[in-house]
Order: sequence, then structure tokens, then C-alpha cells
Amino acid sequence: MTPALLTDFILMADSKPLPALNGNSMAAEALLQEVFGIVVDEAIRKGTCASEKVCEWKEPEELKQLLDLELRSQGESQEQILERCRAVIRYSVKTGHPRFFNQLFSGLDAHALAGRIITETLNTSQYTYEIAPVFVLMEEEVLKKLRALVGWSSGDGVFCPGGSISNMYAINLARYQRFPDCKQRGLRALPPLALFTSKECHYSIKKGAAFLGLGTDSVRVVKADERGRMVPEDLEQQIIMAEAEGAVPFLVSATAGTTVLGAFDPLEAIANVCQRHGLWLHVDAAWGGSVLLSQTHRHLLDGIQRADSVAWNPHKLLAAGLQCCALLLRDTSNLLKRCHGAQASYLFQQDKFYDVALDTGDKVVQCGRRVDCLKLWVMWKAQGGQGLEQRVDRTFALARYLVEEMKKREGFELVLEVRVAGWEIKASLLESVSTLPQVAPVLKERMVKEGSMMIGYQPHGTQGNFFRMVVANPSLTLADMDFLLDELERLGQDL
Amino acid sequence: MTPALLTDFILMADSKPLPALNGNSMAAEALLQEVFGIVVDEAIRKGTCASEKVCEWKEPEELKQLLDLELRSQGESQEQILERCRAVIRYSVKTGHPRFFNQLFSGLDAHALAGRIITETLNTSQYTYEIAPVFVLMEEEVLKKLRALVGWSSGDGVFCPGGSISNMYAINLARYQRFPDCKQRGLRALPPLALFTSKECHYSIKKGAAFLGLGTDSVRVVKADERGRMVPEDLEQQIIMAEAEGAVPFLVSATAGTTVLGAFDPLEAIANVCQRHGLWLHVDAAWGGSVLLSQTHRHLLDGIQRADSVAWNPHKLLAAGLQCCALLLRDTSNLLKRCHGAQASYLFQQDKFYDVALDTGDKVVQCGRRVDCLKLWVMWKAQGGQGLEQRVDRTFALARYLVEEMKKREGFELVLEVRVAGWEIKASLLESVSTLPQVAPVLKERMVKEGSMMIGYQPHGTQGNFFRMVVANPSLTLADMDFLLDELERLGQDL
Repeated sequence: MTPALLTDFILMADSKPLPALNGNSMAAEALLQEVFGIVVDEAIRKGTCASEKVCEWKEPEELKQLLDLELRSQGESQEQILERCRAVIRYSVKTGHPRFFNQLFSGLDAHALAGRIITETLNTSQYTYEIAPVFVLMEEEVLKKLRALVGWSSGDGVFCPGGSISNMYAINLARYQRFPDCKQRGLRALPPLALFTSKECHYSIKKGAAFLGLGTDSVRVVKADERGRMVPEDLEQQIIMAEAEGAVPFLVSATAGTTVLGAFDPLEAIANVCQRHGLWLHVDAAWGGSVLLSQTHRHLLDGIQRADSVAWNPHKLLAAGLQCCALLLRDTSNLLKRCHGAQASYLFQQDKFYDVALDTGDKVVQCGRRVDCLKLWVMWKAQGGQGLEQRVDRTFALARYLVEEMKKREGFELVLEVRVAGWEIKASLLESVSTLPQVAPVLKERMVKEGSMMIGYQPHGTQGNFFRMVVANPSLTLADMDFLLDELERLGQDL
Repeated sequence: MTPALLTDFILMADSKPLPALNGNSMAAEALLQEVFGIVVDEAIRKGTCASEKVCEWKEPEELKQLLDLELRSQGESQEQILERCRAVIRYSVKTGHPRFFNQLFSGLDAHALAGRIITETLNTSQYTYEIAPVFVLMEEEVLKKLRALVGWSSGDGVFCPGGSISNMYAINLARYQRFPDCKQRGLRALPPLALFTSKECHYSIKKGAAFLGLGTDSVRVVKADERGRMVPEDLEQQIIMAEAEGAVPFLVSATAGTTVLGAFDPLEAIANVCQRHGLWLHVDAAWGGSVLLSQTHRHLLDGIQRADSVAWNPHKLLAAGLQCCALLLRDTSNLLKRCHGAQASYLFQQDKFYDVALDTGDKVVQCGRRVDCLKLWVMWKAQGGQGLEQRVDRTFALARYLVEEMKKREGFELVLEVRVAGWEIKASLLESVSTLPQVAPVLKERMVKEGSMMIGYQPHGTQGNFFRMVVANPSLTLADMDFLLDELERLGQDL
């Protein structure tokens, strides 16, 4: 090294840390205290208050201006940064607001959020006991609990970044179990495969089939009945037909809580078909899995214990926070690790001083993997299984109330009163002030621009646009149900 | 509805929200304030303080007892919950600690953490402008900035849940571009495919090939030189060989910053080979991408602008927080959406009142997708491109210092002094107090049990175990480099 270079280097790497916050290490804490204050005021207090707006609509071009998104060479003052944090919150949709019915997640659970803030601060990856001792053990415990609710006393599982990825994992595991050669030799070494799901399934099944190289054609679409539930007789028919065409059926993906109609497929009957034909039964219970917590309603998932795999997203009905997506497996043969493992020697050293079976990171196709168990664990510890059960029961009761109230009013038409020995979580309703499909988009535009409410609409089959009501936020009350109906009437009164 | 049922229902769904926090809505705020105080004390202040332990080792069985992980029916008091939060932090590894060198991420950036706390509180999904107006626009702006650093004035991209998934996306996009039929008809409709990467590549390439149905055999392993860089001549040889065997080459995955040796593949030469053979060039720059910020060192990635796709994880060298993983594309033909889109009508309605091109969620194979742009955006706004550049330059300088200091000491052997017209980010060093491969695990056990430091080791090729030093934490100083050497000497003095 030449002296000149050495000097350069000493100038550059002196003994002080970088002055990211003006060299003052207390500044980091001070900044975070300030930001947390803003978060509490704007996102938590106002963001969950019914008298505040659920969203502050801006046209994209105007919003770009307001946010000043550009990333520049020069940094900004702390004051400017705090103002930016405020703006980000101000113009974001408040998904914890009691009039946010737009998605299959809503509400703000303080315990879960506490878990998320700790997770973000600890900032670790869920691959080895060495780097995530608490979370390796905790993930296993949480998965064990979820498996117990499915009805399994043993098994395996992992948290995935989204229910779609969970569904893909299930498909990949099923084909690997049937054709272990696939991992090394690929699909060209296999006969043509076929998997089965109903026409009401989530779109991730087709996306997954394409991504996994099977192609969307490999997905055979099974009929659903008038309530959106898979027809087991048609499933069997489709299986026989696929075999006759030379394909090898390997998996059925049933749904517990479909995305639009909230239907629960008849799992016992489907399991019988799978058993007869030796097929892997996957249950996409991303939405409906949390109903297993309710003694009153869990019969909707009767037969789920016969599944081989279950995808269950506690970030939906339990409001654990995005993302909290468990893939649960009945398997006890280490299938996950055999199917996905690559034994990277820089991460999964075999000569460690502890039991390397605790290094669960090789079970997944990811490398770095976020900690998704803590938010659910803290929430469960605080509220107990009983508290969570009450929440689930309450969503059913609120949906039932809404349906009864809606029936009393003119101008509403119930598209589907799903009643499966109880009441469905979702009531789908049609704003039939006009039967034109343009009505829903107009009402949606009005509510968003006023910021009074958010609810999703869609067409379905031959049915024109209708609003899909999702009751999930644990802080909802009867008044919020009344508000929904009043507000739809008000927004549509001139149509 | 019978009167009895109605009564049940009224009992259940009264007009008050569930008493998750004893019916007191202020309790949510109070809880979060308490938890935040614990986070600041334990995870931020102590967690980044050199005189505190980097980890508090417990054997798994003991840790289970200490954490009392079981999830029960009964909820717990706030006091108990706060104690649990403290325990979770206490027994977790402090990845923000200045003596945490164990992974390719470390450090705690207060601005990025501020962005993460806001993200968690807003709890939205990155699929439509309707639900994530701020983040749809922000993601595009951040990706544009990263693309500009790659050298592209246009293009596409998306944040993925991990670099492994980014790499899979690249493989899927490359095969779809070449064989659009694949999406519908699957790999059986295609000729056998071949992709190419060096023996030093990340293990996600093989995992991805298996997951995507190509099989690990489709990955042809190209030689690396003595510094771990792909040999372009061997790449060309392998391509010709694959073709001769009847396979269709479609993608080369080069690496900018390999996982163990920190090597940068010669991208210009590789791009020339790809151009000659019409192959998609993907660059896995998960680790090395951030070097693009440095005017001094970005030449290590010369030629990256010729790539078709780049995977870059700002959660590594820039300490943005897990996960922040950009997949960048040169494509301007909407390839992402064509390849992955499924046009779900319940989410991506075409009759919305705004430009639905803003609904970017159909670009991905996921459905719900976390917001990963805000943490990087806040950090960049606060520190500016210049501040981030300084950080990157500083890691090079610190690594250079470490190497020079190590050379002065007996007992250390430099496994590889990577010098590519400058200094490498990573210096790999061998604790050669003994040349037995058992030494590294023993030293590791000692440092972890004392909690003094964490650094990873591995064997590599014919080389026995050595320690891999990663300099990434932006708050590191020369003293931390000295400490590393002193501590390895101390821990190994009796061996």
C-alpha cells in the first residue's frame, strides 16, 4: 500500500461512526421517539377513529407533488423528515379504521402491532437457531398450536410471505412427494400432471401452476354449487376425465372461505374423493382458517384434519398484521426439508455446537425470511384462545345482524345469503338502487373521494357488480353495520 | 330468525367493541407506549452498545422454559405481556450490535426503522392505488432510482420477499419471454432448458430451478477463478456443450458480490457471451448492488447496464431492514404483468374511476404483498445519495484497514485477499492458530456463549473452516476491526 493510499484511507475510515444523525447517537433515539409520537397521533388515534376519514383521496399527479417522492443526493433535516412521515400517513388508507371494509384484512390490534414493532427493531432472519433462537422456538410453538386446531398432534410447517406462496409450496410438496425426481430432473421427466380446484378458488392456484412450470392448463376447474362450494361429484368426474386424457392427478386444492363468496368447500366429501384416488388434499384456508378457533363455527371446516396441507393467514380474520401466513403440514417425514433443502455450507454448518435440527431455514425456498410468528404470539398470549374465539364469533354475529337489517330496507338486494348451518362471515350485498353495473363504481368513487368508507365491489359470474361486505375488524360494532347501510343509501340517493 | 336466536345474537354483538384491552381504547395507546419504551431501552440503546452482549446464549430447552412459549386459552395481564416483550428482546441476537458480523446484514439505521414502524402501523398491501396510493407511487419512484443507478432510464421492477424470490422471478421471466407458451402449457410443452451460473453463486439459483419445475440438473455450473469470479470462457464452453446435448440455453445468472468470497463476476465479458448466444442476463447483486452508489467502487459492476434483470437487496449493505429486495428489469413491454398477471376481477376491476395501470399488484405471483419501499425511501430522503455513498465507501475502507492490521499479526492467515482494482467489501480470514477444521466451531461456541461477538465460518472448496468477515453495519469504526482481531486471539489463545 502506498503512503498516499493509506492517507486517503485514514481520512475515510476514522474512528467515529458515520454522522448519519449528526454524529449524535442520542439523535437516533430522539428521532424514533418523534416518529413514534406521530404514528400514535396520526395512524393509531386518528387512523382508528370513526369520525376521521378512512382515506384522503388525491389524484396520482397531485399526490406525487404533495409527497415530493424524488430521491436526491442531499439529505434532509430532521424536521423535513418528520413532515414527510406525517404526509405518508395522512395520504395512506387507514386499514385499521372501522369503516374500512375493502379487503380481507382490517383493524389494528395493539398487541399484534407491539409484536411487529419488536420484530422490526430486532431485524433478524428466521434461518438458524444461532441467529434467531427465540423465533426458531416460537415459530415451532405457534405452528404446533395452529396444527392442533386443525386436528393434528404432529406435523410440520412454516410461515410464508403470503398465502399465494403457501399454496405454491403445497403444490410443490405434493408433486415432490409423488415424484421425488422432479427436484433434480424437472417436469420433463414426469408424466403430465393435473391438479383440481373449484371455479371459486383464489387466483393464486393458477398463478402458482404457471410459476411452478406446470402451466395453467394443468389446473382442472371443478364446478361450484349455487353457494360457491366445490361439487365433490364433479371433482371425481374431473379426476376420471383427466386420467382418461393421460394426465396424472396429484393434488386437490379445496378452499375454506372463498375470496368473493366466502364459501367453505365440503372437506369431508372432498377428502373421500382424494382418499379414493390417492391425491394430496390441500386446503386454502387463508381466509377461513381462523374459524377453527370458534367452537360454534368450526364445523364449517369439518374434515380439515384429513388434509395433507393447510394454508392459513392469521393476518386476515385475526388482524395479526401483514403478513402472517402459515403453511401447515401433516407430514412427519421431513418432507419440507427434503423437498426444498440445499444444505448451503456457509449457513447450515453441520459442525455447530448445538443441535442443527433447529436450523429450520433450509425448509424454505427463500434464504432470508422475516419473522412472522411474534405478532401472532404476543396477541395470543395477551388475549388467549378465548379472546380470539370471541372475536371470530362476533364477526359472525355482526354479519348476521347486517343481513337482517339489510332485509328490512328497500334498495338492497342480498346477492347470496350464505348459510351453512350458521351464518357466513361475509354477506355479499347488491346496491340495487339501480341494476346497472355502473352504479357500484360510482358509489365507490363517491365514498373514496369523501373518505367516508371503503368497500370492494366486483362482478361475479353472470351477476353484475355488487358490493362484497367483509366483517373482520375486531373493533366493529352494530353501529358500524348500520353506518354501512345508511351510507350506501346516502351515496346512492340521486341514482 | 327465532326470538331465542335473536337474543343470543344480541348478547354477542352488542354495540361496544371487544374488550381486547379491557374495553378502554386508550389502553391500546398506553400499551404501545410501554412497549416502545422497552424497545428503545433494550433493543435500540443496549442492543447497539458495544459494552453490552451481542447475544445471550441459552440452550434450547432452557430458553423454552424462560420464554414460556405455550399459547393458552386464557389471556394475560399487561404486566405479564410487557415482561414477555422484554424477554423476547433479551434472548434475541442483537443484529444492530457493532460486534455482529454474522450475516450479510447488520446495523440499525434509525431512519429506516422509522419507515418500518410506519409501515407496520399502516398495515396495507401493495396491490392497488386504491388501497396503497402512497406506496404504489413511492415504490415506482424508488425502483426508478435504483434502475438509474444500474444505468437504465426506463424499465420495470418490483420489490420481492427476499433475493431468492427475485432470482426465481428472473428465471421465470426469462423463460416466459423465450417461450410464452410455458405459462399456459407448462414445461412439458418446451424443449429441455439450460441456465448457467458459477459455482460460487447463491444456492437460491438451484432452489429456484427446482421450485420452478426446471430441476436442478438444468443449472449448468460454470467455473470460477481463484478469486471466485465466473470464467466467461468456460461459460461459453458450457453453453456450446448444453446445446450439443440438445438443451436450449435461456439464461445466465451472474453474481455481483458472491455469498462467501464477495466476488464480482466480470459482467462485460459475460454480457458479451449472452449477446452472442441471445441469452437473458440476470445479475444477482443482492449483496453487491449497493456498491453502485459509490463513484469510487461502482466499476466493480461495470457492464451491469447490459443485464436484463438485476436482484438488489438494500437490506444488506444499506441496512434498510429485512426485507428490502428489488428486482429490476430493463423490459418496457410489460413483461412482468404479462408473465404473472391473472386479472382477478375482485381486486383489479377495470371499471375503476382512476387509471388502473396504477394497480401494480398483478405484476407479482403473490397476492397480498408487504410495503418494502418506505424504509428505503425515508433513509434515502434523510441521508441523501451522498450519505449512502459515504457509507459504502467506508465499508471498503474498514475492510482494507482490517486486512492490513491482520497482516501485521501472527496467527492469522488471509484466505483470500480479493482485490479487484480496489478493495473488496469482504475480507475472508483464517484463524490459523491451528489449521484443524475444528478450531472455528470451538471459537464460535466460545464467542456466542460469552456474547462478545458473532462472526460466521464455513469451509470452502478444499479450504477448511475459516471465518468470513462481513463489514456492513454503518456504525462500525476502526476500533471494531481491532476488537475483532483481539477477540479472535483471546478466544483462541489456549488452542
